[in-house]
Amino acid sequence: MDVQNSSSKLRTLLRTSKTVHSAAADVEAFIRGVAAAPEPYVDPDAWIKLLTPNPSHELRQALSECLAEARAMQEDVLNAQALGKGRLQDLRREMKRRKIDGFIVPHSDEHQGEYLPLRAERLAWLTGFTGSAGFAVILAKKAALFVDGRYTLQVRTQTDRRLYAFPHLSDHPPTKWIAENLPKKARLGYDPWLLTPHQVTRFQQACHKAGGHLVALQTNPIDHIWTRQPPAPISPVKALPVSFAGKSSSYKRKLIANLLVQTSTKAAVLTAPDSICWLLNIRGGDVPFSPLVLCFAILHDDASADLFIDRRKISKPVMRLLGDRIRIHDPDQLRDVLDKLGKQKKAVQLNKNSVPSWIYDRLNKAGATIMNGDDPCQSLKSEKNTIELKGIRSAHHRDGAALTRFLAWLAKHGSSGTTSEIEAADVLEGFRRENENFQGLSFPTISGAGANGAIVHYRVTPRTNQRLKPGSLYLVDSGAQYLDGTTDVTRTIAIGEPKAEMRKHFTLVLKGHIALGRAQFPYGTTGAQLDGLARQPLWHAGLDYDHGTGHGVGHFLNVHEGPQRISKAPSSVPLQPGMVISNEPGYYKSGAYGIRIENLVTVIEQKNQKQSDKKYLTFETLTLAPIDLNLIDAALLDKNEKEWLNAYHARVCQMISPLVDAATKRWLKIATQPIK
Amino acid sequence: MDVQNSSSKLRTLLRTSKTVHSAAADVEAFIRGVAAAPEPYVDPDAWIKLLTPNPSHELRQALSECLAEARAMQEDVLNAQALGKGRLQDLRREMKRRKIDGFIVPHSDEHQGEYLPLRAERLAWLTGFTGSAGFAVILAKKAALFVDGRYTLQVRTQTDRRLYAFPHLSDHPPTKWIAENLPKKARLGYDPWLLTPHQVTRFQQACHKAGGHLVALQTNPIDHIWTRQPPAPISPVKALPVSFAGKSSSYKRKLIANLLVQTSTKAAVLTAPDSICWLLNIRGGDVPFSPLVLCFAILHDDASADLFIDRRKISKPVMRLLGDRIRIHDPDQLRDVLDKLGKQKKAVQLNKNSVPSWIYDRLNKAGATIMNGDDPCQSLKSEKNTIELKGIRSAHHRDGAALTRFLAWLAKHGSSGTTSEIEAADVLEGFRRENENFQGLSFPTISGAGANGAIVHYRVTPRTNQRLKPGSLYLVDSGAQYLDGTTDVTRTIAIGEPKAEMRKHFTLVLKGHIALGRAQFPYGTTGAQLDGLARQPLWHAGLDYDHGTGHGVGHFLNVHEGPQRISKAPSSVPLQPGMVISNEPGYYKSGAYGIRIENLVTVIEQKNQKQSDKKYLTFETLTLAPIDLNLIDAALLDKNEKEWLNAYHARVCQMISPLVDAATKRWLKIATQPIK
Repeated sequence: MDVQNSSSKLRTLLRTSKTVHSAAADVEAFIRGVAAAPEPYVDPDAWIKLLTPNPSHELRQALSECLAEARAMQEDVLNAQALGKGRLQDLRREMKRRKIDGFIVPHSDEHQGEYLPLRAERLAWLTGFTGSAGFAVILAKKAALFVDGRYTLQVRTQTDRRLYAFPHLSDHPPTKWIAENLPKKARLGYDPWLLTPHQVTRFQQACHKAGGHLVALQTNPIDHIWTRQPPAPISPVKALPVSFAGKSSSYKRKLIANLLVQTSTKAAVLTAPDSICWLLNIRGGDVPFSPLVLCFAILHDDASADLFIDRRKISKPVMRLLGDRIRIHDPDQLRDVLDKLGKQKKAVQLNKNSVPSWIYDRLNKAGATIMNGDDPCQSLKSEKNTIELKGIRSAHHRDGAALTRFLAWLAKHGSSGTTSEIEAADVLEGFRRENENFQGLSFPTISGAGANGAIVHYRVTPRTNQRLKPGSLYLVDSGAQYLDGTTDVTRTIAIGEPKAEMRKHFTLVLKGHIALGRAQFPYGTTGAQLDGLARQPLWHAGLDYDHGTGHGVGHFLNVHEGPQRISKAPSSVPLQPGMVISNEPGYYKSGAYGIRIENLVTVIEQKNQKQSDKKYLTFETLTLAPIDLNLIDAALLDKNEKEWLNAYHARVCQMISPLVDAATKRWLKIATQPIK
Repeated sequence: MDVQNSSSKLRTLLRTSKTVHSAAADVEAFIRGVAAAPEPYVDPDAWIKLLTPNPSHELRQALSECLAEARAMQEDVLNAQALGKGRLQDLRREMKRRKIDGFIVPHSDEHQGEYLPLRAERLAWLTGFTGSAGFAVILAKKAALFVDGRYTLQVRTQTDRRLYAFPHLSDHPPTKWIAENLPKKARLGYDPWLLTPHQVTRFQQACHKAGGHLVALQTNPIDHIWTRQPPAPISPVKALPVSFAGKSSSYKRKLIANLLVQTSTKAAVLTAPDSICWLLNIRGGDVPFSPLVLCFAILHDDASADLFIDRRKISKPVMRLLGDRIRIHDPDQLRDVLDKLGKQKKAVQLNKNSVPSWIYDRLNKAGATIMNGDDPCQSLKSEKNTIELKGIRSAHHRDGAALTRFLAWLAKHGSSGTTSEIEAADVLEGFRRENENFQGLSFPTISGAGANGAIVHYRVTPRTNQRLKPGSLYLVDSGAQYLDGTTDVTRTIAIGEPKAEMRKHFTLVLKGHIALGRAQFPYGTTGAQLDGLARQPLWHAGLDYDHGTGHGVGHFLNVHEGPQRISKAPSSVPLQPGMVISNEPGYYKSGAYGIRIENLVTVIEQKNQKQSDKKYLTFETLTLAPIDLNLIDAALLDKNEKEWLNAYHARVCQMISPLVDAATKRWLKIATQPIK
């Protein structure tokens, strides 16, 4: 069936449907939007309801076919082959046309999100580089693509080194490079939707140092030359019932509105989709791995909100659920609403570290008083409520069962020498798919055998795929999205008999994991203060790991969320009860093996507190899966550490056994036996 | 002799002197300036050389008498009795005259220093409150004096609660209070010399929330009504020889000038006296406890500098030493130099967190491009050079001997029940005074017996003075300024037989002290990451201390210096070799006793590094004095901790014994015997 035919058939079928929503007005455009969103793991036809509530079987089939076609036609920007210099030449021509001498290409979208919609993959389209972090600056004669230590090898295989220099993103950052390389009086352009006001300030200083100027552009030059750029993604907005969310949207909105009133602030601009999803109790599927609805919102001090969103994503029932306190606008109406706030000389709160500078500039010019402050949803969202925590515990229970089944499977098959990284990841995903409330993976599984385990952000591809070999270590970092929670867990497993050095290093990592896991600390303690606890056993051996110790985790939302974290990064955010955070020290021996032990934990108040002026906090471990006893050198553990491990394993065995088959149960009993 | 007589006699004597410097032009004003500086510990007549190089005996005597008179006449602003409401009424009248509805009175000077010159003690003069931290906001009908937890009792004894409310400085900060209390359309005045640009931004937001305005005033209203306000202090500027400083001023200036050139910055504004003293290798005595020269400087990218200073402080020989690359200006010429930089559209670096907003505003208005960045001296100054470190080690050696003599004295006399806190502090100061290169104390000695030891920033007064009683703890936190280094040490000593609980708590504090003291960590580690190590043993017992674990210490400069610190405060400053920092965990049982164990340490590279990708750092302990074995419960220490303690004590015994008398030596041998 060719496209022409299927389209006309579709239109006929839609014409004869009883109820047809406005999204059907341009059904081809609609389907291209659906195709630009990731394929959902569950309920793949949910999008059809956005067109008509009761599709006939024939219509459903025709729509599915059209979507499949649109997907096939879509440019596979993340798997492009060697690009040549055409696109860079096109961009430079476009720069010349616009009378600019340079252009900044960040790896970001309007929401500063971790996972981008396809249309925002401009850096990949231009350069071929598909890493999760990167930054390009294009000048008339020079171009630089900045990557960090994770991607120094990858960038050389994806991007032509004759066209781009590859400076290190933090050692030789773009601001420094611009200060050194921008010609005097040059005009360096940027897309004000893709940089934050703080970034703009830094780039302005850099341009000034070079004697040049930073220039905000009305439209992105890449969008002009990228003829097959996908449209914005369309995935259905789903309501998250209060039985999962714990609190109603109106409760949350009133809470924040009260904070705004207290500081005489009229409104807060929200540009982080996870904030808006949390606030409105909605979820979507516009980007991979995170159930996000891409949109903007302005929350007012009367607890009403303006939501700027492609209306085609919202079904009638969801529209009704949102209620009339949520005013729906087309995205391009944001301009008018900001202008109105400005003209009324209102105080508007936004975070200069996360909103697009376009919004900041617009408000500023319109006359608003800008109150720079955190996105007010962020800290409230991070402190999970009782219902959320109940769901998160339940999700971890099921997720732990899937991981335990996998570990038992691995114990049986892993040391045969035939299991590959991809097969292992697929088996694990298969077990997770069987779980209740499963909605997809929460990030690409890191399935690293031997030396691949030492690559911290390893993502297996058919080209890198290795077999698990006896005498090696296997590292698997994985997680899932469930309607009731998000999981993220890492286990390192000995394939066959491990070497003494592996056991020593694993035990040092475990000592750090336990020191953090059993930490007790007063209210007001930040993650930075705890970071050293997890590293100290390694440090004393002259070892360390080049990543943070813990990141916040959302409730059926981003697997990486703030504001809490455990790392050396400066932090003024105290750990609060209900926060969910990872505990994941590691050690990586380049070219040999990687070790990481990751549990998610939640902050709780210490029970049976000793006499003290203050209340103390501690961690409850959420993740339930055995830690490989074959890798532990018990002589290196002290009494407290052994007690912690044995208590944890006893709990894992007790909780997980009822959820797994008899063979797994037998294996689990041995895998969790106490050590002496 | 009355003032009139002594003045005329003085003038006659000066007329007949051979060489007389310009400072003598108005000798009375000069002497009032000298009187406004603290009395120096050593060489009390050095100031006379600023008038004439070879004073006759008679002239010297006459000058000393005049100075004594000036000191006696000077208002003792820090020991004022109950003030009544007169000054507050005067200020409100002055506010009205200037058409402002409020005025901000911070406890700060133009340099944001810890110790203020007398004329900057405006908060004390207005309110009677003499704490080291405080902040007042005066409105027409209301007034608030903000203090922190240390001073909630003291403020009630010094300041009339019918005139002022006493909100908590951090729980209910001035910005919040202003947002709540400033009337609509009110104009809140501030002295732009006393607030930083960052503070001004915050107060502007606060005023905006209340619907009012923040207004910079040309002059400080308090200076207008404080008729007996002391003048700016005059103390002789002394050159610090390179044999102490390690590097010449021109070397340091070139180092920073290169940094400026690299970032295309024309000049850096320096307003921190310790930065300028370090940069120019000068020291002074304008404020208590820190050998500071109050002045401003602008360092240029050609390594020359403009120094804005009262010329009367500088003798001819010092002037010659400074050389012609240091251009001396009167302080009021700062305006013209800033305007010139602005008119030339130069890029000027300053720190919006520390410079007076007056300077920022002036530069801004004049057209300069302001590069917000750290004071470039701060981090260079914090990484002590080899000569500085040699001096610091030597200073700690001598200082440790004085402290050890004191501890031996205390062991003999302390439990008699007759020794008082003041006597103990005086005895200790007496031993220190005998030390080579002694220049004074580095901060007011904290000499706290029993419950007074639990007051973290206790300063003994005749009213609070307690006797050391058997069965109690005595805490002494003290330090000195030497030409070759600054010391700061705390010891807690059992007076008589300690209770088991005291020993337990002392040992927990010691465990934290040792955990930090023996820490090993890679380059890039911040103090915040290490803070938890020192607290963990206490946290596990449900205990903590409400202060930082470590502060930076200068080289014959401020006893508190940045940018390094060990605390929960957000920090992006990695610990670097040569930094000097304190290690001072504690525990305070309110109403009962205080425990603190403080050593200064310096960051060094780990010797004999194990195979590793990174270089590791550790601490070398500088402080040399025994830790009270009577307070240690050895059963609570593990093998590593005992090893650390025994090695430390062996080193103390070996190093200090040659410097002390036979009796002290005998005591020291027992006080440092190894524990099992």
